Amino acid sequence: MGLNRRAAAVGALQARIGYVFKDGALLERALTHASAAAGKRGVQDNERLEFLGDRVLGMVVAEALYGRDAAANEGDLSKRLHALVDKATCAQVGKTIGLADAVRLPSGDQQARGNDTIVADACEALIAALYLELGWEGCRAIVLRLWADALARQFIGFVANAKSELQEWAASLQRPLPRYRVISRDGPDHAPIFRVEVQVDGFEPISAQGRSRQEAEKLAAQALLQRERPND
Amino acid sequence: MGLNRRAAAVGALQARIGYVFKDGALLERALTHASAAAGKRGVQDNERLEFLGDRVLGMVVAEALYGRDAAANEGDLSKRLHALVDKATCAQVGKTIGLADAVRLPSGDQQARGNDTIVADACEALIAALYLELGWEGCRAIVLRLWADALARQFIGFVANAKSELQEWAASLQRPLPRYRVISRDGPDHAPIFRVEVQVDGFEPISAQGRSRQEAEKLAAQALLQRERPND
Repeated sequence: MGLNRRAAAVGALQARIGYVFKDGALLERALTHASAAAGKRGVQDNERLEFLGDRVLGMVVAEALYGRDAAANEGDLSKRLHALVDKATCAQVGKTIGLADAVRLPSGDQQARGNDTIVADACEALIAALYLELGWEGCRAIVLRLWADALARQFIGFVANAKSELQEWAASLQRPLPRYRVISRDGPDHAPIFRVEVQVDGFEPISAQGRSRQEAEKLAAQALLQRERPND
Repeated sequence: MGLNRRAAAVGALQARIGYVFKDGALLERALTHASAAAGKRGVQDNERLEFLGDRVLGMVVAEALYGRDAAANEGDLSKRLHALVDKATCAQVGKTIGLADAVRLPSGDQQARGNDTIVADACEALIAALYLELGWEGCRAIVLRLWADALARQFIGFVANAKSELQEWAASLQRPLPRYRVISRDGPDHAPIFRVEVQVDGFEPISAQGRSRQEAEKLAAQALLQRERPND
């Protein structure tokens, strides 16, 4: 891949994550596979960043799971966490944002481009670079946006009828209809993240986030049902 | 353990971590072992918090390692990380801050008090509770303080020059020489444990323990550098 083509890919990557790095050298390091740095003086590869990024990602996803499903026990949460941070998911997210084209490889070894492990490692390194440049809150917001689909998929099986189920449950307790309200909307216009709170009279409200208001409402309804009827 | 004695232990715990929780129920949840919550309506145990705290701790320690030793490769960093977040280290830190006495157990099962796994799990849950109440920066500062000894021990090989490094750093800030003082000496004569505090004008003192006064001084110097220059 020529230099110009790679530069374009790095630009496209930043557009897709919705953030342009101030420290271009840091981004470049996150994108540099070990094979491209080997034997080159002054060129650092992304392995140390990958080490840090793995833990940043783990914490972002752990917090998202912790906040989303109040009924899940530690074992359920761990199982979901592992599925959400494994190499396959990191590679999938990495390809969505164009990492396969942006990774820096030795010029003679372009056939490794698109290799899942290489893309997954670069994805973790990129997360570390975002953390180092933006701090925790800024990094978390971007990672949650990139992982929104994967997180939603973990919960898709549960939520189809959550809102009507919650309504029936409230009625069975002689309560008025559940009330939903949007408490925040983050992310860029093409990939918004909504946080919605649901309230049923007499119960503590609970909130959840989703890629649409509708999805966040379903997930909040599900979370409230799971908290109040854990054995259902 | 009577209620009053446990309340005193919970107070002592907060004094040792240097933070008093605003949300007492959150702290209580972090301290509640599953056996004390089982079958009790409305009593939540600390397992979900432990899930989150494990990842918060992993990220705090990963960042500290990443910043500390620019020469270590990913494998070295991972090995150190695992040693620093394992149950033994969590139990050791937990005991230092008085968690063994503060944990909530069923009144009929007090012999489990001091059990390493129970203390380690409560330590991780406490870290999650700190994160939920203080956010990332505040939580990280406390965890780095609690883990200062353990982190310094991981770098025993690297601390050879910590005292001269600290001296140079203090000089670069136009401060007088760092001052060291032994604050305790425990253990039998053939295996003493020294705790030494180091102070640099304008910075909070920090202490560390070692098997000799010299070692404790190095570790304290290292700990202060690590706290004040975390990304070096």
